[in-house]
Amino acid sequence: MKDHVYKLVELTGTSTTSIEDAVNTAIKRADKTIKNLCWFQVVETRGTIEKGKVHHWQVTIKVGFTVKD
Amino acid sequence: MKDHVYKLVELTGTSTTSIEDAVNTAIKRADKTIKNLCWFQVVETRGTIEKGKVHHWQVTIKVGFTVKD
Amino acid sequence: MKDHVYKLVELTGTSTTSIEDAVNTAIKRADKTIKNLCWFQVVETRGTIEKGKVHHWQVTIKVGFTVKD
Amino acid sequence: MKDHVYKLVELTGTSTTSIEDAVNTAIKRADKTIKNLCWFQVVETRGTIEKGKVHHWQVTIKVGFTVKD
Amino acid sequence: MKDHVYKLVELTGTSTTSIEDAVNTAIKRADKTIKNLCWFQVVETRGTIEKGKVHHWQVTIKVGFTVKD
Amino acid sequence: MKDHVYKLVELTGTSTTSIEDAVNTAIKRADKTIKNLCWFQVVETRGTIEKGKVHHWQVTIKVGFTVKD
Amino acid sequence: MKDHVYKLVELTGTSTTSIEDAVNTAIKRADKTIKNLCWFQVVETRGTIEKGKVHHWQVTIKVGFTVKD
Amino acid sequence: MKDHVYKLVELTGTSTTSIEDAVNTAIKRADKTIKNLCWFQVVETRGTIEKGKVHHWQVTIKVGFTVKD
Amino acid sequence: MKDHVYKLVELTGTSTTSIEDAVNTAIKRADKTIKNLCWFQVVETRGTIEKGKVHHWQVTIKVGFTVKD
Amino acid sequence: MKDHVYKLVELTGTSTTSIEDAVNTAIKRADKTIKNLCWFQVVETRGTIEKGKVHHWQVTIKVGFTVKD
Amino acid sequence: MKDHVYKLVELTGTSTTSIEDAVNTAIKRADKTIKNLCWFQVVETRGTIEKGKVHHWQVTIKVGFTVKD
Amino acid sequence: MKDHVYKLVELTGTSTTSIEDAVNTAIKRADKTIKNLCWFQVVETRGTIEKGKVHHWQVTIKVGFTVKD
Repeated sequence: MKDHVYKLVELTGTSTTSIEDAVNTAIKRADKTIKNLCWFQVVETRGTIEKGKVHHWQVTIKVGFTVKD
Repeated sequence: MKDHVYKLVELTGTSTTSIEDAVNTAIKRADKTIKNLCWFQVVETRGTIEKGKVHHWQVTIKVGFTVKD
Repeated sequence: MKDHVYKLVELTGTSTTSIEDAVNTAIKRADKTIKNLCWFQVVETRGTIEKGKVHHWQVTIKVGFTVKD
Repeated sequence: MKDHVYKLVELTGTSTTSIEDAVNTAIKRADKTIKNLCWFQVVETRGTIEKGKVHHWQVTIKVGFTVKD
Repeated sequence: MKDHVYKLVELTGTSTTSIEDAVNTAIKRADKTIKNLCWFQVVETRGTIEKGKVHHWQVTIKVGFTVKD
Repeated sequence: MKDHVYKLVELTGTSTTSIEDAVNTAIKRADKTIKNLCWFQVVETRGTIEKGKVHHWQVTIKVGFTVKD
Repeated sequence: MKDHVYKLVELTGTSTTSIEDAVNTAIKRADKTIKNLCWFQVVETRGTIEKGKVHHWQVTIKVGFTVKD
Repeated sequence: MKDHVYKLVELTGTSTTSIEDAVNTAIKRADKTIKNLCWFQVVETRGTIEKGKVHHWQVTIKVGFTVKD
Repeated sequence: MKDHVYKLVELTGTSTTSIEDAVNTAIKRADKTIKNLCWFQVVETRGTIEKGKVHHWQVTIKVGFTVKD
Repeated sequence: MKDHVYKLVELTGTSTTSIEDAVNTAIKRADKTIKNLCWFQVVETRGTIEKGKVHHWQVTIKVGFTVKD
Repeated sequence: MKDHVYKLVELTGTSTTSIEDAVNTAIKRADKTIKNLCWFQVVETRGTIEKGKVHHWQVTIKVGFTVKD
Repeated sequence: MKDHVYKLVELTGTSTTSIEDAVNTAIKRADKTIKNLCWFQVVETRGTIEKGKVHHWQVTIKVGFTVKD
């Protein structure tokens, strides 16, 4: 079996609705230009506040994908 | 342009429904006494357990706001 | 009043829907064999990606429970 | 059941005798102006040295208390 | 000489008197069911507050012990 | 000799010129409302970018001061 | 597809020859009593010294395995 | 309002004069090939020594920028 | 002397034999598309388990290289 | 006023009685060969176990002292 | 080519003017008694406050140097 | 039984062959001037790259040894 190599890129996704949605926003965008996305890890969760509630969730993730030979 | 100063306070919000709701509980309360809330960062996510499921989500955040002169 | 002792075990719960659901999946399973579950702390949030979106949320938690004498 | 909000403040208590005493020095002072103190977490333990032994124990803690509506 | 294997379990001991006592409460309990306890490491020190002073010290430790073949 | 208690507050100072200036901006503002400022620790250094260079340095510090009885 | 639950246990493996061997010593022992071992993560690498060289490599790992229903 | 996605890249800038200059060296270079640079965070500050003083400041930063659709 | 800029990318190399081999797998692949690779730092060491032993070592590294003008 | 330079050395003190005593054991020994000891910071608290209780407390500290010109 | 060994010592340099100057104060002093100083890493930046501004910058660094055979 | 004191020094060992060899290079050198070396902990693993592979492994360790009275 071959030894794979993966690359990790760091992205911040945003959403007005939820943490899960912010993560998916980032992954959806990455999927446009990167093939073989495999996994992600949440690095940081933060956001902006307006009118006494969360306005934008900003979730920073690392996304890992297979690097082709 | 003027150099701003921000202050950060640490709060734990709770909720029986979700992490997002626990964060908003804390921010909503902070908004009663602090003006100019700008952003937050999640510090820790924990909670209590009852009857084999999460009872209260307890999310600790740092909230940043502009300090007026 | 007696001095209690608690034990913490580390579990990874998974879910196709949300972080909260992944946490509850782990707690629900722990509840089958451990009595007196008290609290949990989120240790890490990651997951797998398929078709440009999160496939499985994988949330690692520490679960604390009372150790009987 | 209502969703509570807690605030955490960071204090450094000092003592010439012990770590426990330094923590209690900080809590005792906080109790003068803050109601509903609930819990604390030790953040850092350090101190000053004089004549080849610890002179002052300096223990930094975070103290959590209930924020009233 | 044989290559040993050790296991680490995480426990929270409590005490109304001191950090040392809380650690010993946890170790004493572990000793009832685990043989060959070797060492411990303090992971976190926190506690509850009542009437302006520490009520219960809660010290989380990892305890290491030899795993027999 | 009396056992002192110190409080730490977290502030973000900003400056268009330097890290040192951003720290002093925060301290100068704190000094308007807090007496007995003693020390600070840098928590995080970040900033905004405009036209290919740093626009605002944003330095978050913890400031410690003596709490009077 | 079902939502799995994994458990993580912490072990220290030892070896007089290499880090890799110390990890395998721990995994080999875990495999005797735990089914479905899936993955591990290195937590800490340390060791004992004798006669000016490493005597025992001590590698602490977390081992994850599937928890059956 | 649209949900933005940001990417973060890690760079080490160097300078013989100051930390601020090393950060700007990295940002200036990034600006040549990346549009919409927004913010940076200092990750690590180190450097080389020659003749009893700092020769090169080496400051590692993460730079964030908007990812276009 | 000119002030250099370096970029760091994060890669996971795998190997069935050793940690060193996993690192070299990642570097060898990076060398195909990146010139001027200078240094690396190990970020995390983990792996998969099969038949009671390590199947694949997965070592995540940051690789630094000179960015040309 | 002159700009001082301090050096920090890392020591592990041991004691059969308490954490405070282990710290003082290390400082007392350092005081034999180092002048101008100023302060210490606790780095790690661990220990050995015998007969179901702590046998030796092992507290690792950093000790800072003034370096003379 | 020979395999080198380096030693790292931890120092705190101080300065009334800047972070860079505090680092150089420490390095300059180290250079008096240690040959072959190679590199440094900033560990912590803190300082004292007087009259509403930074009085002394206190920067703790690790300094690495070649150990001769 | 007497209360021992240990000192820890930080060293970086290098090797063109392996991580284990780099650790032993550092320990072998330390053993020339320090008696009673007891244990080590790996602090950081990094290295230099040449011709698409690791050139020098650079492993930083803390070495602990007994301090005589």
